[in-house]
Amino acid sequence: MTKPAGPPGPLDDRDRPSFPLDAWYAAAWDHAVGRDLHPVRVADLPVVLYRKLDGTAVALADSCWHRLVPLSSGRLEGDDVACGYHGIRYDGDGRATFMPAQQTINPSACVRSYPVVERYRFVWIWPGDPARADPDLIPDMHWNDDPEWAGDGQTIRFAADYRLIVDNLMDLTHEAFVHASTLSQNEINTERLDVRHEGGIVTATKWMLGVTPPPFWSRQLQHAFPGWSGPVDRWQIIRFEAPCTVTIDVGVAKAGTGAPEGDRSQGVANRILNTMTPATRDTTHYFWAIARDYHLRDQGITTRLREGVAKVFTEDQAMITAQQRALDANPGHEFYNLNIDAGSMWARRAIDAMIDAETQRVGVARAWTGAGR
Amino acid sequence: MTKPAGPPGPLDDRDRPSFPLDAWYAAAWDHAVGRDLHPVRVADLPVVLYRKLDGTAVALADSCWHRLVPLSSGRLEGDDVACGYHGIRYDGDGRATFMPAQQTINPSACVRSYPVVERYRFVWIWPGDPARADPDLIPDMHWNDDPEWAGDGQTIRFAADYRLIVDNLMDLTHEAFVHASTLSQNEINTERLDVRHEGGIVTATKWMLGVTPPPFWSRQLQHAFPGWSGPVDRWQIIRFEAPCTVTIDVGVAKAGTGAPEGDRSQGVANRILNTMTPATRDTTHYFWAIARDYHLRDQGITTRLREGVAKVFTEDQAMITAQQRALDANPGHEFYNLNIDAGSMWARRAIDAMIDAETQRVGVARAWTGAGR
Amino acid sequence: MTKPAGPPGPLDDRDRPSFPLDAWYAAAWDHAVGRDLHPVRVADLPVVLYRKLDGTAVALADSCWHRLVPLSSGRLEGDDVACGYHGIRYDGDGRATFMPAQQTINPSACVRSYPVVERYRFVWIWPGDPARADPDLIPDMHWNDDPEWAGDGQTIRFAADYRLIVDNLMDLTHEAFVHASTLSQNEINTERLDVRHEGGIVTATKWMLGVTPPPFWSRQLQHAFPGWSGPVDRWQIIRFEAPCTVTIDVGVAKAGTGAPEGDRSQGVANRILNTMTPATRDTTHYFWAIARDYHLRDQGITTRLREGVAKVFTEDQAMITAQQRALDANPGHEFYNLNIDAGSMWARRAIDAMIDAETQRVGVARAWTGAGR
Repeated sequence: MTKPAGPPGPLDDRDRPSFPLDAWYAAAWDHAVGRDLHPVRVADLPVVLYRKLDGTAVALADSCWHRLVPLSSGRLEGDDVACGYHGIRYDGDGRATFMPAQQTINPSACVRSYPVVERYRFVWIWPGDPARADPDLIPDMHWNDDPEWAGDGQTIRFAADYRLIVDNLMDLTHEAFVHASTLSQNEINTERLDVRHEGGIVTATKWMLGVTPPPFWSRQLQHAFPGWSGPVDRWQIIRFEAPCTVTIDVGVAKAGTGAPEGDRSQGVANRILNTMTPATRDTTHYFWAIARDYHLRDQGITTRLREGVAKVFTEDQAMITAQQRALDANPGHEFYNLNIDAGSMWARRAIDAMIDAETQRVGVARAWTGAGR
Repeated sequence: MTKPAGPPGPLDDRDRPSFPLDAWYAAAWDHAVGRDLHPVRVADLPVVLYRKLDGTAVALADSCWHRLVPLSSGRLEGDDVACGYHGIRYDGDGRATFMPAQQTINPSACVRSYPVVERYRFVWIWPGDPARADPDLIPDMHWNDDPEWAGDGQTIRFAADYRLIVDNLMDLTHEAFVHASTLSQNEINTERLDVRHEGGIVTATKWMLGVTPPPFWSRQLQHAFPGWSGPVDRWQIIRFEAPCTVTIDVGVAKAGTGAPEGDRSQGVANRILNTMTPATRDTTHYFWAIARDYHLRDQGITTRLREGVAKVFTEDQAMITAQQRALDANPGHEFYNLNIDAGSMWARRAIDAMIDAETQRVGVARAWTGAGR
Repeated sequence: MTKPAGPPGPLDDRDRPSFPLDAWYAAAWDHAVGRDLHPVRVADLPVVLYRKLDGTAVALADSCWHRLVPLSSGRLEGDDVACGYHGIRYDGDGRATFMPAQQTINPSACVRSYPVVERYRFVWIWPGDPARADPDLIPDMHWNDDPEWAGDGQTIRFAADYRLIVDNLMDLTHEAFVHASTLSQNEINTERLDVRHEGGIVTATKWMLGVTPPPFWSRQLQHAFPGWSGPVDRWQIIRFEAPCTVTIDVGVAKAGTGAPEGDRSQGVANRILNTMTPATRDTTHYFWAIARDYHLRDQGITTRLREGVAKVFTEDQAMITAQQRALDANPGHEFYNLNIDAGSMWARRAIDAMIDAETQRVGVARAWTGAGR
């Protein structure tokens, strides 16, 4: 295991941004955006989402040019959104197309429009420099609509910095304590965690060979291989993609059937997909899903897994929001790191690197924030 | 239409007062003040209102000289108010008349007493220099108890700067968008608004000649002239009196019967009476009433109009408080003004002029605020 | 009566501590601490209380060394507490005894442990320098478990500085106004209050000789001396022990039977026991009890007295929290003092003296606060 030489920047340094703006952030599940006005705060910017008549998703600043009233309190008129106060209308590019009681339209009248891409069942927006909004930079969550996988997910609003959720996901030893009844087994605490990092990607891998599966996994094995029981090889392969996406490859296979070498035909696997969009510095839209690679058409399993994970994440939420409150009460506190923190330390460094690079590009003033209201 | 040369001072400049103290402010409806203690915050001052045994209204600082406990938590004893904690009593002029466990009364012991006048069904108080409290300066809302008019009103507490409500009332084109179903008609957006200003008075006039009346008005015409239908001449004449009173003369008459020239015998008129007392910088006691000039003894019409306006104002409240939150989130934001904003711009300038004159008189320290707790 | 020469330091000077750390504070009733984790804030420090298997009470900082998560969200394992997030365990002295996924324990890993003493049915903790934690400094509340007395009490959480409750208890003339229906009599306002002070102790004594007892007392006399009625000698002897304990000796005896000289055999007495632990600067855990010296085994009287006092204290709570809000709204306000304030003025000076002495010892930085999170 590689452990970082020193700690990343402190979480509560309010003089530096807590997230980059030049990044794709999930703003909503695709099914949540339609022919009504959907307000959402992303990267501390008020955004309104809707679809044009042809189905194209639009993301505009949720703040009228005239009096700052939220456009989401207005209404759609064709492909345009009309402010609910004085009726000023904007098209999907944010240009004003109507003003009350006057013939001419002030040429400067517009609201900001954000680059939008739909992928993996999410609507992604880019709050930063539009010229840099390359769709290839969208983090890989393809399991969410891959025909070889089946699953579903939800959104949770956390009253916590998104980086605390990253910390939580980068170290699964907490399962032994937070989720003792469902996921825990002693080997989580004893087996070695292998952490690697390159660019904005951090992976943390743990194998538990020849172990007894905990309830969450024995039930899934029974579904895929009815009647079978015995020891398993269990894996947890965590993949972080800066700034805020964590996909976790977890599974068990019959012990000794070659899972560590790549043959997982005698096992079951899940992908826990997580992307934690900063709403504000202290609040997060946590979009997650769980997908599996067996019995793809059994909606009962889909529902059971989704509800099971939802329950587990409620336990994490209680712990993480308590941690946020403790941070708020202890500004400038210096943290001690254990071996288990190696994954999150590298993830934090990858986030810091993105922020630092962006600060160098656009300057301390963070021009994009100022423009977006 | 005259448009101001430049914008007034920004709304959110916290270094300057948002309202003058040398002004009459409605503190309560007259029926709300009696032989109990009525606390109300006016111009950011805690005030307690009550009536003496002879019915005279009294306004004292709601804060005991001894320990600052609200006097409104105490009780009346004859014409005096006794603090509920240690029993110190004050007369209607604010002088201490009793102290516990001692014979002598500290000669400096007193609370501030505010000039009070009852007029037009409201209790008005003057938070500023008592020497300047001339009752002739009370804004004209006489329709509220004029025997030629009938009506009623209510009080709404707005979580917004009173000036945002002034803005709202000075431009009725918002009716087309906020109140589309009840009051709107296309001509509101196309007819010319005539704005005039002199001293602290701003008037904004709009005539719509030969138009079809919207539901709110056709129903009233039917009441006054049963069976009649046809085009109308419709008017909206808004009168602002600094710092916070707006009376609106609205009505319709049978088209071509001379209403623009002054003959309104073939029509119906309402007066919307509004006075927006600043409670704090960000909250407002909005006192309003609607009066009419026909069927004066029909309580059914009175109730229907009052409830109709109450519903319309709920729509305005949602929009205005959203605007206040947007302002709070965007300190220092510079606003763009449209033609429709001419009335509110002049109103804001009249308010600014009152504040500036007062600041020159009493200095930046605003001595009266300091004295009033 | 001695009146202080000048006022104590203002209550709202945020640059100085509002309470000493070198003091015993009641953290809980003894029955409230057991084999679960009991979080409580004392002197602005998060504390978790529990009992070891042998019944010994433990007080630790409620904040894990690793990520600051509250230990009270975790669980007991034998005599240790395990953090609910990553499972780090601490013994009753705060030393780490287990870390996840590693063999060695960081030698610096610990949380602060506070000196604990159980006495008079309360669990007392010492937030300051442990070397100074002398159990002889615990304030005298022995009536709470003295076999010659019987009684019971409760805990109230006040949204107010503990010193406002001290003020309230040091002057019982407020009974005439706040508790007019139960405790008041005219003589409270006319009889002389004798105030004495020495070191951290202030006493305030009032005798009302040959008076008619108010309802609260006539009922108790009837219990102890069935059938008797007549004038009484009534006393109120308030004893303040810095920083936050007030015990009040109150009672009545048949008039002229020698109560002032010390013979109270022909009367009944109560002790009102109050200790007001600062939770934060603006909130207080108010622990109180009422004990009596007659009919010791009659639980009906115990309950009736406890409920009666609880009701009276609700009236005080309303007044004191209103006073706190008024203080917050008037920073720097200078207060006037009346004769009735002599007791509280000396009490405040005794508190200030403790704080000043401690500041001189440990410096402005208040090292203990910093260490405790």
